[in-house]
Formats: sequence, structure tokens, C-alpha cells
Amino acid sequence: MDFSSIDKYAKSLIKEAGHRIRNSFVQDIQVETKADANDLVTNIDKEIEQFFIGRIKNDFPDHRIFGEEGFGDPVEDLSGIIWILDPIDGTMNFVHQKRNFAISLGIYQEGTGVLGYIYDVVNDDLYSAQQGKGAYLNDERLPDLTETAISEAMVGINSTWLTPNRYIDHEAVIQLIRDIRGARSYGAASLEIAYVASGRLDAYVSMRLSPWDIAGGLVIALETGAVASNFHGDSANLLQSDSFLIANPSIHPLLLDRYIKLK
Amino acid sequence: MDFSSIDKYAKSLIKEAGHRIRNSFVQDIQVETKADANDLVTNIDKEIEQFFIGRIKNDFPDHRIFGEEGFGDPVEDLSGIIWILDPIDGTMNFVHQKRNFAISLGIYQEGTGVLGYIYDVVNDDLYSAQQGKGAYLNDERLPDLTETAISEAMVGINSTWLTPNRYIDHEAVIQLIRDIRGARSYGAASLEIAYVASGRLDAYVSMRLSPWDIAGGLVIALETGAVASNFHGDSANLLQSDSFLIANPSIHPLLLDRYIKLK
Repeated sequence: MDFSSIDKYAKSLIKEAGHRIRNSFVQDIQVETKADANDLVTNIDKEIEQFFIGRIKNDFPDHRIFGEEGFGDPVEDLSGIIWILDPIDGTMNFVHQKRNFAISLGIYQEGTGVLGYIYDVVNDDLYSAQQGKGAYLNDERLPDLTETAISEAMVGINSTWLTPNRYIDHEAVIQLIRDIRGARSYGAASLEIAYVASGRLDAYVSMRLSPWDIAGGLVIALETGAVASNFHGDSANLLQSDSFLIANPSIHPLLLDRYIKLK
Repeated sequence: MDFSSIDKYAKSLIKEAGHRIRNSFVQDIQVETKADANDLVTNIDKEIEQFFIGRIKNDFPDHRIFGEEGFGDPVEDLSGIIWILDPIDGTMNFVHQKRNFAISLGIYQEGTGVLGYIYDVVNDDLYSAQQGKGAYLNDERLPDLTETAISEAMVGINSTWLTPNRYIDHEAVIQLIRDIRGARSYGAASLEIAYVASGRLDAYVSMRLSPWDIAGGLVIALETGAVASNFHGDSANLLQSDSFLIANPSIHPLLLDRYIKLK
């Protein structure tokens, strides 16, 4: 399989999709809700997923596509080549801010991440990686992550997890906030993973992410040395929603041991 | 006083300072701490403040300058014309991320905000306003804020205020997080105020901000209809640190009444 050609193809497709999204800003965007009142989807999310699927099905008929909006294939295993796509990650930001959202795409072969992309559409920043060949922000290679201390760490976390909840011990998360240098919340998982990959955050924690939120970012972040797992310390889940922790390798074990305690 | 000329002058000065900051990325940045281990300052913050002061003192010798790093004038009243400056708002982001920081500048005459600027240096986005003449993002006029509901609001707030603290009832803040659509935290007050001015956030809450954090943003946000106060509902404080709430006018009273309860 010539993944360098697929890399060029995927980048071109992503840039074209980004162009379509930017053009949508002058249209009326139709917003609907999904699982709950704050789980948004728009006609643009759907159109962009269909755009990807149409092209990929035409050009790579043997590949499967696993997409957030459900227009792709039913995926119950990771055999063959699978494109795992979120056409707009951070739909709430897309709707309210017209920025701080991304296209997230990972291409996996027999369960191994081979190519990964996170495209910050409005800033025209493309994070990308090919397995074993390093990660890039546009044309610039991202350096390997260097050691950090928890006391100097910047952590991306949704503020909900500091409040009493069914899933994790919020008191331990409050202690985390006290022990680190700063917490941030951007509302787009893929961008927060890209920030960990590029050292702008030292960790990103989320209670519940879907495969399309993490598939692209995992390939990128592993290339700069980040460590990813669920809250049990197992490999990130590419078939269903799960908890997710990605961090600088020097603090990942401590985060898991001391601060992220499942109930 | 010809404020349109001062506006052109200030914009030019800010763009030049931004250029100097971007150039600093290739240098070694020296980081020191101020009030506590997470209150950072760098040689670049200091150099940029001194750059502004040198120019303004030369070209407007009668004006006073009130700056975060303390190289300006001692300011105990708001008489005359005062430039209120934060050379780098969001120093932690500047150090760790090399983005998500801003130059913040307000020009006040006898205590009234006449000109305001927030310059997102890395994105080259300049928010600006002249009192009574509307607010702009670069060359594009920002529309007036439209009504919103608390259930659809996006609120900028540091996660610290969801945890037990000396200043406010954190239980009420937890309820706020449950009632709104989403919380965000970017770590740069001026940018979060710019987001409120441009409708990307519907409110921004902070327990403790200094005059230079808010001076530029106030002029801009008032032009699009945002309402600002401290947590008592009094006018924002331009002489010393205080609590700060800025919001879409349709939710400001509710935020103050129901969710922000001083101890």
C-alpha cells in the first residue's frame, strides 16, 4: 500500500473540505440536537461527511469509512483500511464561534494508525503525521516532547469533571487543578490532542470520546512521544466511546495513578 | 483632541509591537515568577511595555501610561489622558503555547474609555473600537449582540471557581455550568472579553482582574452592547484589581442575581 500517495490525497481532500466549510459561513446553518440539548449537529457536518465519503468510496472502493454522522460503514472490527472521520469536531464552537473546530481524520490499517490529520479550518493549520515519519504542523516538524513536572503542566479538561458526577472522583480532579500550572478548555477534543502533540498542553483528559474524536490525533501525538490510554490504562478505544487521557510521557503515569480515579 | 489620529497611531504601534513579539519566538525567552509560582513574567513582557512607553512619552508627553509591568506612571486617579496597557495578556499561554495571548490597550480621557484595542498577535486579529463609532475585528464591523438564553450560553470561566474557594459560592457556579450550553477557558482575559464583544462567548467571569486586563476590552465590548460590572454590580474598576463580569445584556442581570454569589 502506497501510504505516501494516500497522504497527499487525504491532505488535498481535507483542504477542499475546509474550503467548503469556510464557504458555509455565508449560508444559513441549520442546527439540530442529537443525544441531548447541547449535543449539536448541523447540515454542514452532514454535508462534509458525505463529501468525504463520496470521494473516498469512488477512489478507494475497498476502504471502509467510520464517520461521526453515520453516513459511512457499520464498523465492528478494524480489519483492512478504515478512514475514521469527524467532519467537524467541536460543532458547538462551529455554531457559536465560527472557529475553534477541526476536521479530524485517521487512516488505520488492521487497527494500526498509519496516517493522522487534524485541520484547524479557520486558522488554516494542518497537523499531520505518517506513522514513523514524524508529526508536522503545516510544513514544520513538531519536536519530540520534553520532560515536564506536574507543577508546571497545562492541562485541557472540561470543567464539568470538577463537579460531582457519576464517573470519576471530582475531589481528585480538584486536587489536580490545584497542583498544575493552569487548566484550559477549548471544546474541541481533536484540537486539544493536537495541542498535546505540539507541547502547548501537557495533557488532555476527557470522560467520554468517540473513535472519530481521537483517531487522527493519536497518530500525530504518538509521533512526538505522547502517551494515550483510557482511564484504566488500556489502549485508546477505536471501536466505541470511552474515557481518554493523553499526556506528556513524564506525567501520564502520575495523572492516572493520583488524579483520575474512576468510581 | 483628535482621537482619530491617535487611533491610527495606536494601531500602528500595536502592530509594530506584535511584530517584535513574533520575532521574540526565535530568541530564548527568560521566564520569572511574580506574586506566585504560576504568575509569570518574561523579558519580552518588559521589553514590549518599555517599547510602548518610550514611543508614547516621546509623541504624547502629556499623556500618562498605566502598565502591568510597572514601567509607566503611578496612577491613582483617571484625570487627563491615560493609556492603560498590558503588553502581553496571557503570559502563561505566551510561554507555554506561543499563542492565545494578546496586547491589550485602552485609552481613557477623564475616566471615559475613548479607544480600545485587543491584538491577538499570532492570529494577526486586531479588535478595536472608538467610543460611539462601533467595534471592529480587523476591517469588519462587529454586529450588535442579539438576545440569548442562559440555556444556550457559552461562558468563559476559569475552572478554579468551581472548586471551594474564599471568594464566591462555588455551588452556584456549578449550577451555572449545568444550566449553560458550554464553558470554555482560554487563559487570557482580554481575548475572552473580545470573544464576548464578538458574540463567540456570551459571558466571561473572573474573580480578580487588573485595570490593564480590561481597559481595552471594555471600550470594544460596550460598542456591541455588552454589559460589564464587578460582582456587586458596580462599574468595572480601572484603578485597582476587582472581580469582573462581562456579558450579553440579556443574561448579565441573571448571572449576577442567580449564579455569582460573593461570600
